[in-house]
Amino acid sequence: MVRDRAHLDLTPLDEAKRRFFSALERAGFFDRAPAEDIDVRESLGRVTAKTVIARRPVPHFRSSAMDGIAVRSSQTQRAHPSHPLRLQLDRDFIYVDTGDPVPEPFDAVIMIEQVTGQDEGSVEIARAIDANANVRAVGEDFPLGAVIAASGRWMTPEAITACLNAGVLRLPVRKKLRALYIPTGSEIVPPEKEPAVGEYPESNSQLFKGYLTSWGADAEICLIIKDIPGLIRREVQRGLSAFELVAIAGGTSKGRDDCTAEIVGELGQVLVHGVAYHPGHPILLGLADGKPVIGLPGYPVAAWLGLMQFIKPLIERYLGLVVSRAPTICGRLAEEVRALAGKRLFVRVRLEKTPEGCLVHPLQGGASRLSSLLQADGLLIIDEASESLAAGSPVTVELFSNPHASISLASHCS
Amino acid sequence: MVRDRAHLDLTPLDEAKRRFFSALERAGFFDRAPAEDIDVRESLGRVTAKTVIARRPVPHFRSSAMDGIAVRSSQTQRAHPSHPLRLQLDRDFIYVDTGDPVPEPFDAVIMIEQVTGQDEGSVEIARAIDANANVRAVGEDFPLGAVIAASGRWMTPEAITACLNAGVLRLPVRKKLRALYIPTGSEIVPPEKEPAVGEYPESNSQLFKGYLTSWGADAEICLIIKDIPGLIRREVQRGLSAFELVAIAGGTSKGRDDCTAEIVGELGQVLVHGVAYHPGHPILLGLADGKPVIGLPGYPVAAWLGLMQFIKPLIERYLGLVVSRAPTICGRLAEEVRALAGKRLFVRVRLEKTPEGCLVHPLQGGASRLSSLLQADGLLIIDEASESLAAGSPVTVELFSNPHASISLASHCS
Repeated sequence: MVRDRAHLDLTPLDEAKRRFFSALERAGFFDRAPAEDIDVRESLGRVTAKTVIARRPVPHFRSSAMDGIAVRSSQTQRAHPSHPLRLQLDRDFIYVDTGDPVPEPFDAVIMIEQVTGQDEGSVEIARAIDANANVRAVGEDFPLGAVIAASGRWMTPEAITACLNAGVLRLPVRKKLRALYIPTGSEIVPPEKEPAVGEYPESNSQLFKGYLTSWGADAEICLIIKDIPGLIRREVQRGLSAFELVAIAGGTSKGRDDCTAEIVGELGQVLVHGVAYHPGHPILLGLADGKPVIGLPGYPVAAWLGLMQFIKPLIERYLGLVVSRAPTICGRLAEEVRALAGKRLFVRVRLEKTPEGCLVHPLQGGASRLSSLLQADGLLIIDEASESLAAGSPVTVELFSNPHASISLASHCS
Repeated sequence: MVRDRAHLDLTPLDEAKRRFFSALERAGFFDRAPAEDIDVRESLGRVTAKTVIARRPVPHFRSSAMDGIAVRSSQTQRAHPSHPLRLQLDRDFIYVDTGDPVPEPFDAVIMIEQVTGQDEGSVEIARAIDANANVRAVGEDFPLGAVIAASGRWMTPEAITACLNAGVLRLPVRKKLRALYIPTGSEIVPPEKEPAVGEYPESNSQLFKGYLTSWGADAEICLIIKDIPGLIRREVQRGLSAFELVAIAGGTSKGRDDCTAEIVGELGQVLVHGVAYHPGHPILLGLADGKPVIGLPGYPVAAWLGLMQFIKPLIERYLGLVVSRAPTICGRLAEEVRALAGKRLFVRVRLEKTPEGCLVHPLQGGASRLSSLLQADGLLIIDEASESLAAGSPVTVELFSNPHASISLASHCS
C-alpha cells in the first residue's frame, strides 16, 4: 500500500483557456450552436441570434404630442395677441388629444392651454405656430428598418416592448446550452441525509445550476454516483448523447479514487489536467464527441472558480454574446497579499468605504471556505509573475456581477 | 363641445413618495407581507424572511486538507533531516486523502510529497509538524449557528450551497407580490393586429412584466379594456380581490377619456394625481382595500419612470429587502442640459470613455421615445431647484442595474 507522489502537471491559466477553446473551435462546437424562433414576449433573458429590425416605423402615423387643436400652420401666420384669429371647427381645426392622429391637411398642434375664446364651433388663437410643432413624426422613435437589438444581445424588457411597437412578434434567439452535472464520490451523500463522519452533503450542484441558469443555460443534475468508474463512464456517455456540456464533479485530483481523467481519456481527450491557479488547481478540461467535458474539483471555491474561468466564457461564446468586462474598482490593500510564484491567485476581498477611498480586505481561507465567497464583494487577481503586495498597495478589484450581490459598491467606493 | 383647460396639480416627487408610502404603511400593507417555507434548492432569487443559521458546523468533522499521512504531532518532534523518523502504518500514522476524517489520536497531516522511504507498512519523515497543521477544524467554514444569510437578502447560488452544507433544507422566504396589469384605452390593440392609423399596439405590459419578474414579483396581464369606466372598474375590483397591487395603464391624464382617477376615487382614494417630474408626470397613486392602485401613463418612458420611482421601492419594501443604492459614475456633460423649474428631470444618458474621463451624452426625446432607454447607459437626475447645466459640467450618473445592460461601464469610465 505504497502511495505515489503523483501530482498534476499544472498548465498556466491562459494556456489552459487557449488549449480548451481552440479544441472546441476545431471540433466545430461553437458553429453548431443552434437558434430558434420564439414569441418575443417569451424572450426575456434570451440572446438574439440575428439583428432585430423594426418591421414598421414607430409611431406609424403622424400624431399629436399634446392635448389641443390640430391646425394648418400656414393659416396661423396672421394670428397675433393684438389680432386673435378665429378658427372654425372641422374646417380650420379639429380637437386632438395626445396620441391622436394629425390628419392632412393639418400639420401642427396648438396646446389647449393656449386656445382662447372657445364656443361650440370655434376658437381663437393669439399666436402663429410652426409646421410640425407638437406633432410626432412617423418613425420618430424607430424608423422602419431601425435596429432594435443587435445580434448577440440579451433581450431586456425595453427591447421586448420596442419589438412589439415595431411589429416584431417573433425573433430568433440562441437555443439554451444544456448541461449535465454528475456528482461523484463515495463520500458524497444526498443533502436530505444527515452526513456521518467522512461524508459530505452534495451541494455544489446548486452553484452550478444557479449560475448556469443566470447565464442563460439549462442544467440537469443527476443522482450521486459512487467512485465506480463504469457507472460514471455510463453517465458521461448519456450526457454526451443528450447535452452540450458534461460536468463531472469530483475525482479530479490524483488521489486513490480519482478516476475522472481516466474516464475522459477513454471517451475522448484530456486537454488540461490541473491549472496553475489558486484556489482550485485540480480541474480537468476535456473534449469528447466534439463536446466539452469538464471535471470540477470538490471544494466549493475551487468549483466556483472553474465555473467562472471556463464555463461562463464557454456559454457566452456558445450563445454568441457580446460580452462586457466585469466592472472594476480601485482601492488600497488593507493587509499584505502573498503572491504564489507561477500561479494566478484569485483573492476574494471585502471592500470598505473610508474617507481616504476604498479599502480592500483580503478574506482568509482556501478553496474549502465557501464563507469567503458569501462575504466577498469581488476578486483581486494577482498575476503569475507578480511580487507579493504590501499593505497599502493600490489594487484593482473585479466586482461580482451577480445582480443580487452588493452591486452598490461601485458607488460606495468610486 | 368646448374643451376645458383642466390640468394636473403636480406633486413634488419626494412628497408624492412620502404620501404614497405612508398611506400604505397606515393601511398595514407592508405588515401583511407573508412568508412561506420552501425547499432551499428552489430559493434562487427569493428573499429571506428570517436570518438563516447553520444547523450544523461545516465541516462537521475534523478532516485532512491534503493528500498525505495523518500523524500525532507530538510524536514527530524528534524528526530531523539528519535523523529521519520511521512511522508504522495504523499505529503511528494512517493514509488520508483530502477531505478524509483525521481521527483521534491523530492531529496533523503531512503532505504525501514530504514523506520518504515508503515501504508496505511504514514511512519516513524528515521534519516535525505542528498540531492542527493541514487539518480542517470543525466549523472552520461555518460554525454551528453561524449566519448564512441575514433576513431580507436575495438567495444566491453560494448561499443555497452553504445552506445544504450546513443542514438547512428549507427556509422561510417572502411570498412574491402578485400584481395585475390592466391595459386600457380604445386606441390600444393587441400586438398581433396590424394597428390602423390612430391605434397603438399594447406593449408596455412587457416593461411591467419584465421588471416585476426581475424584482422578485409576479405579474399577470389582463385583456385590453376599452375606455368604458364600468369595465375598467370591474377589472380593478377583481384585481383588488386577488392581487396585492393593481396597475391601470392609460387614462391618467385629464383628456376626454381619462377615467382612471375617477375609478380609483370611487373604489378608494386618489393620493397623488400628477408628479412634478419629467418625463411622465401624469401618474396616479391611489389606495383601495388597503392595497396600492397605480395609474401608469401610456408613453413608454413615462411608464418606465413610474415603475422605477414607485413600484420598485414598493416591492423592495414589501419583500423586506435590504436595498443597495444604484451604482454611480462621475463624468462631464457633453452638451447643455436645461433644467425644468420645479420638476425633477430624469435625463437618459449615454456614456463615452475618453482619455479625459467619462463623457456624458444626454439623449434626445421625451416620454414617447423608448429608443432613448435602449441607447442609454444610465440616468442623470436634475433636481427641482437646479439651474441648467452647461456643457462640461461635472455630473454623477446612476448606472442602470439591469444585469443584461451595459454593466461594464463602471469599468470603462471609472
